[in-house]
Parts: sequence; C-alpha cells; structure tokens
Amino acid sequence: MRTLPSYLCGAWAEGKGDLETLVNPATEEPLAQAGAGGLDRKAALEHARTKGGPGLRALTFAERGALLQAMGDALQAHRNELLDLSVTSGGNTRGDAKFDVDGAIFTLAAYADLGKGLGEVKVLADGEGIPLARNPRFHGQHILVPRTGVAVHVNAFNFPAWGLAEKAAVALLAGMPVVTKPATSSALVAHRILEILTEAQALPEGALSLLMGAAGDLLEHVGPFDVVAFTGSSDTGASIRSLPQVIKNSVRVNVEADSLNAAVLGPDVAAGEETWDYFVKDVLRDMTQKAGQKCTAIRRVLVPSDRADRLRDDLVDRLSAITVGNPALESVRMGPVATASQLEDVRSGVAQLARDGRLVFGSGEVQAVGAPPGKGFFTTPVLIEVEAGAPAPSVHSREVFGPVATLVPYSGRAEEAAELVSRGRGGLVSSVYSEDAAFTADVVLGIAPFHGRVFLGSAKIAEASPGPGTVLPMLVHGGPGRAGGGEELGGLRGLAFYMQRVALEGSRPVIEKIVR
Amino acid sequence: MRTLPSYLCGAWAEGKGDLETLVNPATEEPLAQAGAGGLDRKAALEHARTKGGPGLRALTFAERGALLQAMGDALQAHRNELLDLSVTSGGNTRGDAKFDVDGAIFTLAAYADLGKGLGEVKVLADGEGIPLARNPRFHGQHILVPRTGVAVHVNAFNFPAWGLAEKAAVALLAGMPVVTKPATSSALVAHRILEILTEAQALPEGALSLLMGAAGDLLEHVGPFDVVAFTGSSDTGASIRSLPQVIKNSVRVNVEADSLNAAVLGPDVAAGEETWDYFVKDVLRDMTQKAGQKCTAIRRVLVPSDRADRLRDDLVDRLSAITVGNPALESVRMGPVATASQLEDVRSGVAQLARDGRLVFGSGEVQAVGAPPGKGFFTTPVLIEVEAGAPAPSVHSREVFGPVATLVPYSGRAEEAAELVSRGRGGLVSSVYSEDAAFTADVVLGIAPFHGRVFLGSAKIAEASPGPGTVLPMLVHGGPGRAGGGEELGGLRGLAFYMQRVALEGSRPVIEKIVR
Repeated sequence: MRTLPSYLCGAWAEGKGDLETLVNPATEEPLAQAGAGGLDRKAALEHARTKGGPGLRALTFAERGALLQAMGDALQAHRNELLDLSVTSGGNTRGDAKFDVDGAIFTLAAYADLGKGLGEVKVLADGEGIPLARNPRFHGQHILVPRTGVAVHVNAFNFPAWGLAEKAAVALLAGMPVVTKPATSSALVAHRILEILTEAQALPEGALSLLMGAAGDLLEHVGPFDVVAFTGSSDTGASIRSLPQVIKNSVRVNVEADSLNAAVLGPDVAAGEETWDYFVKDVLRDMTQKAGQKCTAIRRVLVPSDRADRLRDDLVDRLSAITVGNPALESVRMGPVATASQLEDVRSGVAQLARDGRLVFGSGEVQAVGAPPGKGFFTTPVLIEVEAGAPAPSVHSREVFGPVATLVPYSGRAEEAAELVSRGRGGLVSSVYSEDAAFTADVVLGIAPFHGRVFLGSAKIAEASPGPGTVLPMLVHGGPGRAGGGEELGGLRGLAFYMQRVALEGSRPVIEKIVR
Repeated sequence: MRTLPSYLCGAWAEGKGDLETLVNPATEEPLAQAGAGGLDRKAALEHARTKGGPGLRALTFAERGALLQAMGDALQAHRNELLDLSVTSGGNTRGDAKFDVDGAIFTLAAYADLGKGLGEVKVLADGEGIPLARNPRFHGQHILVPRTGVAVHVNAFNFPAWGLAEKAAVALLAGMPVVTKPATSSALVAHRILEILTEAQALPEGALSLLMGAAGDLLEHVGPFDVVAFTGSSDTGASIRSLPQVIKNSVRVNVEADSLNAAVLGPDVAAGEETWDYFVKDVLRDMTQKAGQKCTAIRRVLVPSDRADRLRDDLVDRLSAITVGNPALESVRMGPVATASQLEDVRSGVAQLARDGRLVFGSGEVQAVGAPPGKGFFTTPVLIEVEAGAPAPSVHSREVFGPVATLVPYSGRAEEAAELVSRGRGGLVSSVYSEDAAFTADVVLGIAPFHGRVFLGSAKIAEASPGPGTVLPMLVHGGPGRAGGGEELGGLRGLAFYMQRVALEGSRPVIEKIVR
C-alpha cells in the first residue's frame, strides 16, 4: 500500500514509524497510509519563512494573484481525477465532491481576481491619508504589509480541497508562505492537490508545504510573526490557543469551531408557498449534503408552533426518499460520514439530542446501498423534534456533525426567535426565511451580534442563492463564541490576518512616496 | 485616611479586608487606601451587560458621541484639580500630568467627533454592497453591530486618565459598557474621574464602572461576547490569555505589552543640523517625560558609528541639565518613577543592560530636589552605550520602564538598521530621522512588519509633531509579538474590537432597508 509523503522544505518526504491507514468510508477498503513520524517540522517552518516568504514578498499583489490563477487552472485540469478521489476517499457523492473541489477552484479564482485588482503594488494602503495637524505636511497613513513568518493551516476532514485552497489563497495573496496540514482521514485529496501544484510548478519554492499525518510538535515552533488558522473542534481550538509558545509570542490564531446554526421560518410563510418550499429545500440540503458534515449546516430549525407538524411531515416525507449508500453509485443521494469515530460521535450525539425531545425520522441504523454488508460509516438522516418552550439544553449546545437537525417550535415572534438562536452562544451563520421585511429585519438585528454571517432567505433569491450552508469568498466566514471567534475570507478583509497594519506618521511627501 | 470606593452596579462601594496604601511617589506620604475585597465582581459585569449594554445600544452613534463630548467637557471643567492630583499621586511634573489628562480629554473629543460623523445610525456598514450573482437581488453587505457583553479594561499605572479614557471612548462609542480597573498605585486620578463623571451624570446607568484594587476573580466571569483590553506587562498579558474562561469562550483579548522602541538616525544627518537637534530633542523627551514610563518611549537609539561619540556627548550634555526631584516644584524637570517596585525594576534592568555595554550617563543614584531625605522613588536618567556590532542581547530584549535608553551604533546602512530594530521581536512604534527619502523608505519598509506604528522624523514636521512617543487617536496603537499583538484606536478602526462583523446575504432591498 502506498505511503503518502509530506511535501516539506521543497521536497517529498515519507514519514517513519506509526502510519495511519486511510480507508474508503463506504467500504472500509484501505486506500493508502500516512504519517509524519521523524519529519522535521521545525525545519519545514523555517524553510517556509526563509525561502517562501521572501519569494512571495518579492512579488506584487497582481503577480501573487496570477499564482493563484495558475493554481486554480492546474486543479481545473485535474478536476475529474480530484472528484473521483473525493468520492472514494471522503464518502462524498459526486455532488458533494464538486462542492469541495469546485469551491476550491472558485475561491482561488476569486482571490486571483482580487490580486489583479490590487495591481502592481507590494504595500496596501489602508484607508485614506489623515491630516494630523494644521501643518499639512504632518500626515498619517495606515498601510498593510505581509507578516514575515509562516502561516500554519490546520484543516478539517470535511473539505480537503476547499479548506486547503481557501486558506492558502488568502495567505498567499497576502504574501505569506503556508504549511498546510489536512486531517489525515481525507488527506488523499489534499495530497493529490500538492502533487498537481508541484508538477505544474505553480508556486515559488517554500510557498506551500504539506504535512501529512499528525501535527506533532508543529505548533511548538511558532514565533511572533507566524499565524495559525485552524478549522475543527472547539477542544482542539482551545488547546492551540493554550500552547505556551502561542501565548508567549502573541501568535495570531484564527479558530473556526463548532456552530449550532439555526434557520428561522417566519410566521408569514404558509405551507406550500414558494418560500415554504424553498425553506424545506434548504433544510434538506444542509441535512444531507456531505452527510451533514458542514460547519455551516443548519442544525436547529425554528418553526412557528402552529405549523410545526406540517413542516415535520414535509421534511419526513422528503427524508424518506433519500437513498443512503456507497456514493460511487449514481442512485445514492447521501454517502457515509467520514470515519468510524465520526459515526460513533453522531450516534452518541443523536442519543443526547433525543433526550431533549423525540426522534421523528431516522433511527441511525441503515441498509446502505452498494456497500459490503456491515461495512461503511453510514447513518440515516435524523430529525428530532422538541416541544415548544422546552429548554432543550443539548439542542442549543451540542453540535452533532452529521445529517442531523432538530425542529424547535416557537411563537412566531421575532424576539423569541432571536433569543432561541442566541442560545447557541455564537455561530457561523444563521438564517431567516420570510417575505415580511420587518420580521426579517428584527430577527437579523437580534441575532447579528452572535454570528459571522446572517442569511436572509426569500423566494426572490431562491434561484440565485446556494443557501446559507455555502461559504462565498466575498463574505466573511467565522463567528464569535462557540464558533471559535475567527474570521476568514470576506474578500480583501481576509488579508488582514496575514498582514501587519502599520500607521505611518510623518512627512506627507515621503509617506506618499512609500504608499503609491 | 480615606478609602477609595469602587463604582460598581451603579453605586459606590468600599472594599473590605486588605487595603493597599497609595503614596506620593516623591515623598512617600500616604494619600489614600484602596482595595476590592468582598466586592461582587461577577455581579458588576452582569450589571454592565444587562443595564449598560441595552442603554448604550439604544443610542445612535451620534448620541454616543455626544456622551463622550459630555465626558470630555466634565473633565475639562475639573482639569486643574486632575492635574494637581496627577502631580501628587503619580510622580508627574505638571507637563507630564497634562500629557495624561489632556490626552484623555483630546481622545474623548476625537471620538465624540467620529460619533457625530457616523450620525443617527445604530448599525455601521462595513464596505460597499457586494453583488453575489448575476441576479442583482442576491446581494451581500457587511455590517458592524455592538457586541452584547461587557468590555473589561485593565490599565497600566502610567496613564490613569488617558488609559481609562482612550479605551472607554472607543468601547462606549461602539456601544459596549465598560468595567475599568486602573493600576492601584496611581488610581486616585481614575477614581476622581469617575466621581466627576457620575456627579455630571454624563453616562447612562451601567455604562462605566470602576473597580479599585485587585482584579481578583474579575476575569473568571467573562463570557463569549465580552472583550478584555489590557495594558501592562507581557507576563500579565500572557496570564490573561491563558485563563480557561477566556480560552473556552473565545473571548477577544487585546494586549499592549512590552516594547523596545527604536529610533534610527539616518547617515545623512550631520551633527548640529536641524534634523540632528530634532532627533536629540525627541530622544531626550522620551527618556525624561513621565520619567521614561511610556510604553512608546524610545529605548534603543541607533546612530551611525561615525557620529556615535558626538551624539552621546550631546545627549549627556542635555541629560546633565535635567533636574530630578519632587515634581510639585516648578524647577523640577523629571519626577520619580511610580512605585518602589518600579524603581527596583529600573535598577535591576539598568544593571542588566549595562552588562551589554557601558554606562555613559547616570548612576541611578540621585539627590532629588524637594524630597525628604531618603524618600521618593527617584532615579537619574540613564544612558548606556554598546559597541558597534556587539550582540547586546539584553538591549534588544529587556524593556526597562524608566528614564533609560541605549545607544546602538550601526553602519548607516538601512538594512542593518532594520535588522537591528527587528531584534526587538515586535514593538509599538519605531522611528527613523532622516531627510533622505530613499533611506527613510528602506528603513520604514524594513521595520514595518514588526510594528504598529512607524514614525518618520524630519525637520519639516518638527514644529507640528509631538514625536513618536505620543499616541494619536487617529492612528493605531499596538504592535505584534513582544508588544502583545494588540491594536487600539486608529480612528474608526478601533471600534471593530468592540463590535461583531456580520455578512448579510440575501435580498438586496431587504438588506438595504436594514443598513440605511
């Protein structure tokens, strides 16, 4: 069986010692091995800092944008291969695989465009010049310059392509070299991406490195001008933030963690209306796409009490039609979750949520289509319903990372909806579906302080919108509190994390010469 | 002796148990006592969140700006009293006292103006609207809304007025209530400010609270929508960042810590020229103003080797003319440091720095004018000189928080200057004094990644500029790495820390109704 090497210090290197076996989550067939035992992570970081950093900083934003375009083009040329690999190694349907791989290509292209727009400059002006005294020569100007360290990216298993690309696109455009560490279980896709990019010689030496296997001591070597961006569980996020090296060096850390994303149905929406159907479709997509393994997926479905039964019945109807099985088959609508431990976590999570209310669809047990008997990490979709007014503490605090959602009836009042949503204590995205602009505005403003993004669902955008579960490169992704307190993307906003903002203060002509 | 009460939950409350005695640092006369034993800090935070927050969020930015103006006006009406108190309780000359108190009033006025400019709105638009699809209805818009928690401000002893006001101005304008904790030794000024503001009824209930004495368990009660802003030592900053409650809740923490600020003299500047004199004046000001107890003060003076002797002689000449003593006397140019332990720290720091080179001015021992014999926390200014090319590790790593600077000769090459400055591993502000725009640009770009602010000294702005040691409200204040990784002020930029950025995604007309 193949052992997947890491790409560090400008060369491929195989880890030694304990290796982890990557399997097809639908069949449990072994696919490859990976491990990073014996690899010199400290040297890898230093190589990125001393080779990759200067190489990137020597380029203008437009030139770095062109690098991103070349990366996107290289992936596009291997798209089918990446999709196949994503299906085999990640439990993804072809649609799920596109969501990940095309998302990666789209995000690279979006940041390539932004780079082009910034032009042939190496220093970004941040805002306008500021007169500091009556004497017009005494002048201020904020600028953004690339940080001189390395960006360490620790990614989640659910988006091996997009997770790698969205973080790398922003860091590389900002001028920072990247060492990226995919979650091992689905790392075949990330590994193949690095192969494609190195074969295409798409990037300067040291700009992008890949660590396969465990992080090990990787984060023990971060310094004051490095940054760490992590996507995954709250617990791991907290342990990264607690590292003595991180704290001592004031290392910037961005965490995207758990999120109990809510979708609120407005009291104006009657069953069978266009907005109702749109809402049902979005809830269903978020429950089943990638078997619910999206950090942005709707977990809590707030519905006016007087139509909770109808919504439950509509959802149960549609869920019954979902074919679960080996995603290599075209007839399969939902694949397995990524690993055995994820499946275990989903099961224990469902048991916990069910204690807050009752299970209305899905026992979890499933006869998966096209999988060897007893094999594969499959679960049915699961819908839980709680009673109106029930405290349901687990529903508002336990993220079950799978095809699981809970119906939470509420009065139909905007304030009550906002209060229920806010019990999530910070999330990535929540949404409100209504054609009543006043109700929408009240919910939006009520829940905005607790989120990084709020989605306003309306029949009028139904055709154009990918729904709340899709992260767009032009909008920020992240959220306060439980969601980790991070912020990524948002167009040019995302660059700030990888750059140092500096106020220049002094003689106006000299400053204007520096910031052209 | 008077015990200074805290102002918590909308009422004055005296601490019980162990009290700390505040003394005049020039005479060691006891002035008052303070302590927070038995005070319910958890309730104080909750009162700010539940009373202060809603009260502030009900106001527009313009209305909150008007509150800041009222605060500034109230302080202005008591300015002389505050200056006197600053001299007696902080070891400040009248000039030092003005720097602190007028800085507070100026910053409040600056943010009052910004509030006025933002107008009668409660939601800030962040950037322009973003088309998200060909269908123009599908639209994005980032907004900023106030966080719903409390802002906890932990301030340093050196600026009891400005430190309180600059942090509070930004938080209050953003719409967050504040619990402020001054350093105890100089807290008489902060305490009097709260008295003045409560007497003037300048703020809504719960908007601004004051904890006198030890922080105690204050930070153990922070939640996911609170923020903590701290100014002080790296060690305390690190311990705040390490608190389980802070990590678990992804609490935003802003730290302003140590900084080895450097000033670089360009090789084009000859002794006796206008720029030379300006440089000498700025170094001297930073060494002696507030007895060197400014986090922005110049600690490392980089001078081309071929004129290091002359610069040393010029500085020694001027330092010899500094009268050290009781700042209540008009003839005194420099007062004591703030406390006995600060004096001890300065002495041990000077001993450490001197091992890297040699002492060229000031033994530390001083006959202070107007102080009782053997009393007061006095030191002379101290100038140390290292040899060109000496590694001088302590000079680049130990911040001595007193009237202490080190001369570091260098070749006159911009790259060498930048390399030496960057050994500080992150600072608040460094500066370059030169009339050679190319040299200036090279140093500025070389050191920018390691700083929050870079000051460009030139004879042309000498009259207008307060020098690198003064923090202006329109420019960011903070720095990476050793400086704590924080960022404050910077005009409207400072608001972001106290607000949640949210991407609204959906139907354009509805979004535009929310963000007018």
